[in-house]
Amino acid sequence: MSETALIVGAGSGLSASLARLFHKEGMQVALAARQTDKLDALCAETDAKAYACDASSLQDVEKLFSALDTDFSSIDTVVYNPSARVRGPFIEPDPAEVHRAINITAYGAFLVAQAALKRMSEKKKGNVLFTGASAGVKGYPQSASFAMGKFAMRGLAQSLAREFHPQGIHIAHFVIDGGIRSDRRQEPADRPDSFLDPDAIADTYLHIMRQPRNSWSWEIELRPFVENF
Amino acid sequence: MSETALIVGAGSGLSASLARLFHKEGMQVALAARQTDKLDALCAETDAKAYACDASSLQDVEKLFSALDTDFSSIDTVVYNPSARVRGPFIEPDPAEVHRAINITAYGAFLVAQAALKRMSEKKKGNVLFTGASAGVKGYPQSASFAMGKFAMRGLAQSLAREFHPQGIHIAHFVIDGGIRSDRRQEPADRPDSFLDPDAIADTYLHIMRQPRNSWSWEIELRPFVENF
Amino acid sequence: MSETALIVGAGSGLSASLARLFHKEGMQVALAARQTDKLDALCAETDAKAYACDASSLQDVEKLFSALDTDFSSIDTVVYNPSARVRGPFIEPDPAEVHRAINITAYGAFLVAQAALKRMSEKKKGNVLFTGASAGVKGYPQSASFAMGKFAMRGLAQSLAREFHPQGIHIAHFVIDGGIRSDRRQEPADRPDSFLDPDAIADTYLHIMRQPRNSWSWEIELRPFVENF
Amino acid sequence: MSETALIVGAGSGLSASLARLFHKEGMQVALAARQTDKLDALCAETDAKAYACDASSLQDVEKLFSALDTDFSSIDTVVYNPSARVRGPFIEPDPAEVHRAINITAYGAFLVAQAALKRMSEKKKGNVLFTGASAGVKGYPQSASFAMGKFAMRGLAQSLAREFHPQGIHIAHFVIDGGIRSDRRQEPADRPDSFLDPDAIADTYLHIMRQPRNSWSWEIELRPFVENF
Repeated sequence: MSETALIVGAGSGLSASLARLFHKEGMQVALAARQTDKLDALCAETDAKAYACDASSLQDVEKLFSALDTDFSSIDTVVYNPSARVRGPFIEPDPAEVHRAINITAYGAFLVAQAALKRMSEKKKGNVLFTGASAGVKGYPQSASFAMGKFAMRGLAQSLAREFHPQGIHIAHFVIDGGIRSDRRQEPADRPDSFLDPDAIADTYLHIMRQPRNSWSWEIELRPFVENF
Repeated sequence: MSETALIVGAGSGLSASLARLFHKEGMQVALAARQTDKLDALCAETDAKAYACDASSLQDVEKLFSALDTDFSSIDTVVYNPSARVRGPFIEPDPAEVHRAINITAYGAFLVAQAALKRMSEKKKGNVLFTGASAGVKGYPQSASFAMGKFAMRGLAQSLAREFHPQGIHIAHFVIDGGIRSDRRQEPADRPDSFLDPDAIADTYLHIMRQPRNSWSWEIELRPFVENF
Repeated sequence: MSETALIVGAGSGLSASLARLFHKEGMQVALAARQTDKLDALCAETDAKAYACDASSLQDVEKLFSALDTDFSSIDTVVYNPSARVRGPFIEPDPAEVHRAINITAYGAFLVAQAALKRMSEKKKGNVLFTGASAGVKGYPQSASFAMGKFAMRGLAQSLAREFHPQGIHIAHFVIDGGIRSDRRQEPADRPDSFLDPDAIADTYLHIMRQPRNSWSWEIELRPFVENF
Repeated sequence: MSETALIVGAGSGLSASLARLFHKEGMQVALAARQTDKLDALCAETDAKAYACDASSLQDVEKLFSALDTDFSSIDTVVYNPSARVRGPFIEPDPAEVHRAINITAYGAFLVAQAALKRMSEKKKGNVLFTGASAGVKGYPQSASFAMGKFAMRGLAQSLAREFHPQGIHIAHFVIDGGIRSDRRQEPADRPDSFLDPDAIADTYLHIMRQPRNSWSWEIELRPFVENF
């Protein structure tokens, strides 16, 4: 029976690279996104199933996992990607937008992790991987909403590592420190490799998932060689 | 004209020590709490005004600051204390309770800070002080909701320090690492000074508020001498 | 009987501000420096005794503490200031200079701390304060020798806090993040308060020394309001 | 032309696992150790050359790299393993032993890194990997000498990452948090996988070495699933 991997916050970029790599490794792939209409090509390419889900909605997350319970015998790996932010001077944004951003980045991570870990803790195995950012370890000016969401997600991931590692479930937090290369966001021609290649990030995610339990990483940072840090 | 200090999350313990010390220093004191009925004695003792406010409610925070605008010429110092948590195995709690806990610990801190900084940024001075915990720098097992809230509040405070220090407004985050002595929570007789004295914490808050802008602390940790860390 | 404070790495700047403040507070002051010929004015002003001592030399440190044992009934507070560095591209410096820099910044801190704590641990009280730098929490490029020395000193201070706080001896590490104002190094006229005032730093050292043991800080950072961090 | 990897601090355990993995990957392997007499079997197994070298001695390190210059066309990867410590109450150990421990853990890392990077910086490529420990991020009581050495090595590695990553040379610091399984040090039978498997650690070292420069990790922690942290 093959493994199943769920990627929450699926679209292009890192999530697509993960889907392709997981498929190539023989895993069944499930993709969750607020809107699934753009996932057709990726689903075809990776034999994946797509699920509509707003990860910050308890009802949606419950519905997602009910569907997964029906469609797969287990969920072995969950990757949480979604994030949102409000940019600009701190005193300007509408608090409702900040609340929404925190909900997507952090509360959604909680909802998905809780639903996944309810299932994994019965089998005493699994991987829950969180896509973090440098904003989760350093609070930048004019970016309080992103700092709040990513710090909170890192706190969640660290608490879960301490609670679930001894139960045999691997929790990992990735600090992505830099822009990710995409069709919409190419690196400057005179600065090759100044953006992260999503396939390279995915390779490190897979390596971490494959670590034996005697040698687990909890936190891993990834950045282009030219990135200031 | 005397300074005014607002203490959000007022009751006994640290907030009462702060109120007394600020009053002694000649400040006008405003106290905000969800329920103000227990604040009568403290108000009398410190000549303070009390305001009913659920800090996680935008409407309440707006109402609070409108009242403060009427009652005081400025708010020079704001202390944010409220926090909430859900204890126990991660897979157990009702997500609604976790959401509420994050809202009180972190989103309320955002709301109060935004309202305060809108006012302080016009005058290019002021202090915003956040009462954090060791849970904000270390995510403990079976305590994800507290880790999320306190990490998020620390990310907020760090982002604000980078944004508002150059504007002349002092932001500080206190890592309270240990139990605080109170009527309800006395230290064991054979372990004197194993709980933090709220008056001692208040002394350090005041010292940080009084630092000249050429030598500002952003983060300060406080713990009893016998506390493991 | 008055307290005695030893300042190692005495000259102008922070050490002079500490000497003046300690004297004003009624402490007896001892100053140690590699060369004491420039300390005459400060000694006169603060009724201090000066001792010649290369803190990275075991023999010198032993001689210093023997003299202190004779001259004072106890040493209640020790401040360690010395540091050295080699700047420039990593592959350039003579290793002997790097070795010397690490010895002054870190090994000297060990020697002084060990001699002081041998004495303090009998009385179960005292303060050992380390003057650190941002280089002790962030390793900057072209500054490996300073990173090594200041990281090592921070590791020393953290280990000592965990070992000696429960014995009643207060260990503190100050992260000085910015230039310190001095006669030789004035801040630009259009950037007032962009350098730390050594008197302001000294005020925070004293506050930390005066904290009761139920509310001790181990690490405190200080920087000008305009400093990037 | 095959790559060459130098392992400093070679013996059994992690260094042997690295030698075997590097050999299997087609690299030429060079082993450096204070005493080479126990390396015969490993050299035979991995077609490695052994070099006698006290890494804390400038003369020895210069001699080592002169020999490597003769024996190999380049050194592409260097791993630094050596460390030493003095255990027990802080006030007890002979300072000379502490000095020696810091020299082996940190100053030796400097000497080897400087010699290696002089060569790598001409070719704008290479890997320098440092074997760290939890003692490098947390200073434990009764272990100041180890904290000093490992903190200093981490500061070195971080400074080098900021200086050499933009030049195309990958610097990585591994936080090994737990005991490593060995013939002498087996995990308890009722606690399987409570010690790190050196082959598993080596797999992660290799993964980091193979990361493309757009997605480099600087710091990676590894610990058994049951380890407290």
